[in-house]
Amino acid sequence: MDTPIAATYSLPEPLPLDSGAVLHGVTIAYQTSGTLNESRSNAILICHALTGDQYVTGTSPLTGKPGWWSGVVGAGKAIDTNKYFVICSNVLGSCLGSTGSGSINPATGTPYGLDFPTITIADMVRAQERLVTEHLGITKMLAVVGGSMGGMQVLQWAVSFPEKTRAVLALACSYRHTAQNIAFHEVGRQAIMADPDWRQGRYFEHGVRPTKGLAVARMTAHVTYMSARALQQKFGRNLQDRSAVSYGFDADFQVESYLRYQGSSFVERFDANSYLYMTRAVDYFDLSGDYGGILTRAFSPLPRYCIISLSSDWLFPPAEHKAIVKALNGIAANVSYVEIDTDRGHDAFLMDVPQLHAMIARYLDGSAAQFGIVS
Amino acid sequence: MDTPIAATYSLPEPLPLDSGAVLHGVTIAYQTSGTLNESRSNAILICHALTGDQYVTGTSPLTGKPGWWSGVVGAGKAIDTNKYFVICSNVLGSCLGSTGSGSINPATGTPYGLDFPTITIADMVRAQERLVTEHLGITKMLAVVGGSMGGMQVLQWAVSFPEKTRAVLALACSYRHTAQNIAFHEVGRQAIMADPDWRQGRYFEHGVRPTKGLAVARMTAHVTYMSARALQQKFGRNLQDRSAVSYGFDADFQVESYLRYQGSSFVERFDANSYLYMTRAVDYFDLSGDYGGILTRAFSPLPRYCIISLSSDWLFPPAEHKAIVKALNGIAANVSYVEIDTDRGHDAFLMDVPQLHAMIARYLDGSAAQFGIVS
Repeated sequence: MDTPIAATYSLPEPLPLDSGAVLHGVTIAYQTSGTLNESRSNAILICHALTGDQYVTGTSPLTGKPGWWSGVVGAGKAIDTNKYFVICSNVLGSCLGSTGSGSINPATGTPYGLDFPTITIADMVRAQERLVTEHLGITKMLAVVGGSMGGMQVLQWAVSFPEKTRAVLALACSYRHTAQNIAFHEVGRQAIMADPDWRQGRYFEHGVRPTKGLAVARMTAHVTYMSARALQQKFGRNLQDRSAVSYGFDADFQVESYLRYQGSSFVERFDANSYLYMTRAVDYFDLSGDYGGILTRAFSPLPRYCIISLSSDWLFPPAEHKAIVKALNGIAANVSYVEIDTDRGHDAFLMDVPQLHAMIARYLDGSAAQFGIVS
Repeated sequence: MDTPIAATYSLPEPLPLDSGAVLHGVTIAYQTSGTLNESRSNAILICHALTGDQYVTGTSPLTGKPGWWSGVVGAGKAIDTNKYFVICSNVLGSCLGSTGSGSINPATGTPYGLDFPTITIADMVRAQERLVTEHLGITKMLAVVGGSMGGMQVLQWAVSFPEKTRAVLALACSYRHTAQNIAFHEVGRQAIMADPDWRQGRYFEHGVRPTKGLAVARMTAHVTYMSARALQQKFGRNLQDRSAVSYGFDADFQVESYLRYQGSSFVERFDANSYLYMTRAVDYFDLSGDYGGILTRAFSPLPRYCIISLSSDWLFPPAEHKAIVKALNGIAANVSYVEIDTDRGHDAFLMDVPQLHAMIARYLDGSAAQFGIVS
């Protein structure tokens, strides 16, 4: 039970997308941990962030390192795999096992590249629902949980499939991407597309990869994942392996060296076109969009909602979360909201923040108790 | 008197730099407006920001548009050229008339490129002091005024040449660049250097320019110049010339179109290597650096200090300014501090913000009155 199981599911039916396109031959890569109980009621789906993957716990075969949320998910952890059956799937359009722009286009026999249709958060959730219902045979989950882009998927689940889960926990996210956030994504995309090795998205045909552009995109994004205070506390104006500035363009400062490392290590594990698709999905996310801009109308009264924000998260500030709570109050939903006090910025949702972990554990265990779910 | 005068000054003596290098044949391009009074006491030096120029008022010959601070500087304006003799010079290392990396290296007869020495804020001020004292024959100015990188120069004037000015007004700046700000600059530099047309800084020899990289650098920086709220109010999620998203990578959103325009128009007027040098000068700025990190020790008791912050400026937040005021209080300096309430972010210092303009006018006119300076 301690070792998660990685698998793939090939959807037998085509998947219709928000764009109007229909995808054939979709594969979803996923991981499960823990044991599904007899009544199939103890499942928790975890949704990953922009460049995340299905390896939420255990050892990631991609990196050889612990899964991205192994501090939260595992035996005896906040999301306890001794109690719950935990599912995490690589989102549609990513590059880490599920179908995406690097997959073979059945119509041409070559990778899609930019012929891959644009994916939305709702499309990702649609594919997840197939996996959960059709393949895993789960008709009602205990909870759907996620942060950042994962939190957007959580909210989308509540809107698209409210009957399929008893609870949702959305963390460090928003119900719609703001202008500033679209702007930062656009900078990243322009950096990728400015790289001549991008080759209009057909780089794989030329044996090259737009690593420089992708690294710049990641560096920009990474700055937004940390708070100004966290950067100041961690690096300040400390110099990197030198006692004085070089009077040049070397990485004199630790923060420069750190950022360059973030860029160069990212390109090892992520695909440039998929980065375009993932950022676009997030930009397009506006849960109120189909409801005349009135978010309240989007929601159904699910049994339980939990919304968690991080005080120093400037990518998805607390105010964005309060707007969700306000909308949920408009349908008298059972919603709890907490703002976790942390200096560490957006990425704190991935870090060891005991208050956050305790909050997640209490919410899920409380929900399980309320609904009489036993492992 | 209404038409500003543009000129250049070639320093007769070499200029020693913080890096240890010595620059020969330095030219400083500058503009003056108004009339120097008989006692040569009504001069105000205005210091420009990162990519600014000497054309602070009147019509810029570079753009054909009004000078960058013509809302503040001019006849009857907050900095009234009917009363004051206003000087503004293009900083050393820029590309708009003063000596920079695009200038001819006397040692080789070809442009410097990256052989140009790294410039600091103190070096810029050193060159300005030569212009003001040596060339214009002004031994004591009424004030030195500037915002952003211009504000850094103002603070540097107070430290390097406290006897040369009666007052300083530093706006929307910091006494040292923070880790977050260095990080954003580094992203911009990496974007430029990632552009194959940069050619290790020798692009001019190849008849190309790294416009794509420079545009990405500018786009990143531009996002930091506006507040999240200003971007949301101005653009929100409004679409650009369309009624629905394209499900693709066009500039669907107004904010994307706006940013792309900011990038493409910037490359028309600014040089990529100079952008590297300007950002580096700002990164290196730490007024407390030579004083064991104790800012108070850097300052002398100038007659009058004025520090102004902008409430929604997240590039140089009010807290950065309060640290300057605190340090000045440590020498019992005559300092006034005000935080201007604005939603418009860092760039508000360049905009029509009446409260700000009134504050600048009162401070300068009050200083002139206190010191018995007549025009």
